[in-house]
Amino acid sequence: MKITASELAVIVSGKLFGNKNVVLTGVNGLSVAKESEVSFLGNLKYLSEALKSKAGIIFIADGMDISQFTNKNIIKVPDPRYAYSIVLGIVEKERLRLEKKNIHFSASIANNVNMGINVCIGQNVVIETDTEIGDNVRILPNVYIGNNVKIGKNCLIYPNVFIGDYTVLGNRVIIHPGVVIGGDGFGFVTTNGKKIQKIPQIGKVEIGDDVEIGANTTVDRATVDVTKIDNGTKIDNLVQIGHNVKIGENCVIIAQVGISGSTHLGNNVTVGGQTGLVGHLKIGNDVMIAAQSGVTKNIKDYEKVGGNPIVPIKQSIKIRVLMKKLPEIYQNLKRIKGTLGDR
Amino acid sequence: MKITASELAVIVSGKLFGNKNVVLTGVNGLSVAKESEVSFLGNLKYLSEALKSKAGIIFIADGMDISQFTNKNIIKVPDPRYAYSIVLGIVEKERLRLEKKNIHFSASIANNVNMGINVCIGQNVVIETDTEIGDNVRILPNVYIGNNVKIGKNCLIYPNVFIGDYTVLGNRVIIHPGVVIGGDGFGFVTTNGKKIQKIPQIGKVEIGDDVEIGANTTVDRATVDVTKIDNGTKIDNLVQIGHNVKIGENCVIIAQVGISGSTHLGNNVTVGGQTGLVGHLKIGNDVMIAAQSGVTKNIKDYEKVGGNPIVPIKQSIKIRVLMKKLPEIYQNLKRIKGTLGDR
Amino acid sequence: MKITASELAVIVSGKLFGNKNVVLTGVNGLSVAKESEVSFLGNLKYLSEALKSKAGIIFIADGMDISQFTNKNIIKVPDPRYAYSIVLGIVEKERLRLEKKNIHFSASIANNVNMGINVCIGQNVVIETDTEIGDNVRILPNVYIGNNVKIGKNCLIYPNVFIGDYTVLGNRVIIHPGVVIGGDGFGFVTTNGKKIQKIPQIGKVEIGDDVEIGANTTVDRATVDVTKIDNGTKIDNLVQIGHNVKIGENCVIIAQVGISGSTHLGNNVTVGGQTGLVGHLKIGNDVMIAAQSGVTKNIKDYEKVGGNPIVPIKQSIKIRVLMKKLPEIYQNLKRIKGTLGDR
Repeated sequence: MKITASELAVIVSGKLFGNKNVVLTGVNGLSVAKESEVSFLGNLKYLSEALKSKAGIIFIADGMDISQFTNKNIIKVPDPRYAYSIVLGIVEKERLRLEKKNIHFSASIANNVNMGINVCIGQNVVIETDTEIGDNVRILPNVYIGNNVKIGKNCLIYPNVFIGDYTVLGNRVIIHPGVVIGGDGFGFVTTNGKKIQKIPQIGKVEIGDDVEIGANTTVDRATVDVTKIDNGTKIDNLVQIGHNVKIGENCVIIAQVGISGSTHLGNNVTVGGQTGLVGHLKIGNDVMIAAQSGVTKNIKDYEKVGGNPIVPIKQSIKIRVLMKKLPEIYQNLKRIKGTLGDR
Repeated sequence: MKITASELAVIVSGKLFGNKNVVLTGVNGLSVAKESEVSFLGNLKYLSEALKSKAGIIFIADGMDISQFTNKNIIKVPDPRYAYSIVLGIVEKERLRLEKKNIHFSASIANNVNMGINVCIGQNVVIETDTEIGDNVRILPNVYIGNNVKIGKNCLIYPNVFIGDYTVLGNRVIIHPGVVIGGDGFGFVTTNGKKIQKIPQIGKVEIGDDVEIGANTTVDRATVDVTKIDNGTKIDNLVQIGHNVKIGENCVIIAQVGISGSTHLGNNVTVGGQTGLVGHLKIGNDVMIAAQSGVTKNIKDYEKVGGNPIVPIKQSIKIRVLMKKLPEIYQNLKRIKGTLGDR
Repeated sequence: MKITASELAVIVSGKLFGNKNVVLTGVNGLSVAKESEVSFLGNLKYLSEALKSKAGIIFIADGMDISQFTNKNIIKVPDPRYAYSIVLGIVEKERLRLEKKNIHFSASIANNVNMGINVCIGQNVVIETDTEIGDNVRILPNVYIGNNVKIGKNCLIYPNVFIGDYTVLGNRVIIHPGVVIGGDGFGFVTTNGKKIQKIPQIGKVEIGDDVEIGANTTVDRATVDVTKIDNGTKIDNLVQIGHNVKIGENCVIIAQVGISGSTHLGNNVTVGGQTGLVGHLKIGNDVMIAAQSGVTKNIKDYEKVGGNPIVPIKQSIKIRVLMKKLPEIYQNLKRIKGTLGDR
């Protein structure tokens, strides 16, 4: 609601005394109303409250003497309570229109979800308890968001996404369709009897600001502690991020990469498509790893590597060329052995 | 509705004059009714209209003289309007049963969706605005279909699929569960300050006739222009198709293949599982690429290649064998160097 | 409901005669009521039935002579029917609370689904016909379960999962978000005209007890017969299991592995991440396959292999080291050829 005192006087067909330009945006009781709020005097026993009220407009009964209301904006009406109810109606209608616009009726949102302003929630979205959704977040249909999740401002979450309990998203995060954030990490112990026991995964996932995660990518929750993807990092489709992995800022992870548990990447790391990293590695800053590499050891800052095993990128190209020459190498060697009578 | 005049006479407990075998399939006003439609004369001021009407059956009041209705099928009833309402009830009930059968009440379909005949839409399906769905399409539960999508005839879309804005599907397309078509392509620019900027992805995805796409496969929308999968091509599970990729007709792409942005495949190409192709390549027609290959250069028509780097398939098999002999090669070479006092 | 006769007397403000400790858990008619059930005598014509009734408590009217009710527990009330209705209210309220707790109203469950006790079903879940759900199963929101599916006891199924027709799950199975079980296998025939024909996939998927399947993993249904994952096997994220694959007990399959159609794994097999297996292989028991391997032949029990082609793990490590020496090998060979004047 955003109407002037004079517009309000017309709406309730009353007589305005005072500042006709004061802007009213809400309603409230005499004692608590602000300068921008409308209130009413429905019963004389509240007269003293009315005289002290900060309300921008007070509805009073036609019969009353307004001289006692110094520096107040008054609208005289036959029935102050009725006039007030008209304004209540306007406020309510706006609230409903707003809700209808922003949150689809089929969404299932726990009572104690803490929602920011201008949040849009699509059809069949489920949001569990104790979760916080920041301002201007858009959650598209058929998304599931678990308990105790925190989602920052201006995030966009596409359909069919799963966000598990205790996940934290920063601001301006984009999550593409089918992404699974916070599924259980792959942790098991094999007991002597060959029976495999699950290790409960009770950690969380933390995703920084401006992160984008591609379709059907999976990010496991930590066993304990946290799986972390830091500010500005972009992850492509069908990537697997294991439990307790940490990825620094502004990294680029191309499609179908797999990063095993507890491996840490620095900042500005680029990982080519379909590359795999074993667990518990330390990858430095500004590292570049070629596509389809197999990384089984730590990598220092600024290194550019490729291959399986990984070697400096130039060397890996040379090796790839020489692999083509293996038949030639083998033939030459055989002939030389003959020449030398070697056996 | 499909009933004969004589059956209809029984239903409205009226008296039939004329062809008792005429088949009635609907209802309509006197002036517009066809031979297969039922109408009624509720008011004598429409008598002339009734006499000219093509309606297969006209309800008239008991008292009327039927001699004036030449070559018309008439059913006399106490109240023509009431008899007509009974028929309306039958039509309405069938319409509802049909709807109930075809479109689940929980589906959320924008008003201006253009739907063909005999479309089945499951629970919790969401279809956004300006979208067209062809005849006999089945969309299973929890599918999301965006704005301005065109889906051809006889398509089958399994649960939990995402189809993004402006996607076009041909006829007889099968999309398996969890597929994401039209997610944003992976396009970013790294500004000097290491901050990564997203390149908006505003292109579309076009999928031809008789295409099948396997579970949890992802097909990115084009940056601009189109990502295209042509008629008859079959794609397995967990495949990644980058933005602006073009795949020709009758190709077979096995599971977990990754095709990077702007790479074009010809017709009848087979790509083995877990193979990766870098971006901007041109792959000819009738090409066969072995599993787990790494393709970094163009491939001509009819070539059969494998390995990383790719070589003719026969050679790649030889190389694979010789790799096993590397220890032997190395030992021989060392011994020869010794013999020759080489250092 | 679980209340004693004396508590019940208080609730209906009646007078108890008989065993005040008898525990009542339900309600029923005089002739069918059990010792644990409450009934009432509302009309004297049923007196003989009341005298023969096994009911744990019978409400009778204040005026009646109770001496005739030998070894029965009686509560005298002004209006037996009214007292009975109070108990009905308690039972109904509990039933509703239970339902509300267990099955969300937005779930769409076919009429002939056979549900165990204490099953929890979340929002927007769809369960098709002739399906059985065991005791204590939890199905989270937006899951789709097809026709003729059998799910054992104590299973946990996360959101956005697809379980296709005829799938069988054992007990204590955990299915993570986005998993697709029972999508069509990838089976086609290419007819001379280059047109590819789909082979209908009509088999099923059978999953044993204590199996866990990671996020967005896909398990294809068999062409005919069955795709099988046996007891205790754990599968990571984004794994592809082809049609008619059989995986033994207590296997561990790491992320992004692909197993092609009809390949059989024994028990206690470990497959490293991103490894691919071609179709129709026989892998023995207690086999270990290193990450990123390419398996194109059978493997015997207890073998530990790696590489592409696979070799014993020790040898594959040696080969990986020697690949780095290829440039050195090539240079030496060239020099030696020079020395020997070889060409």
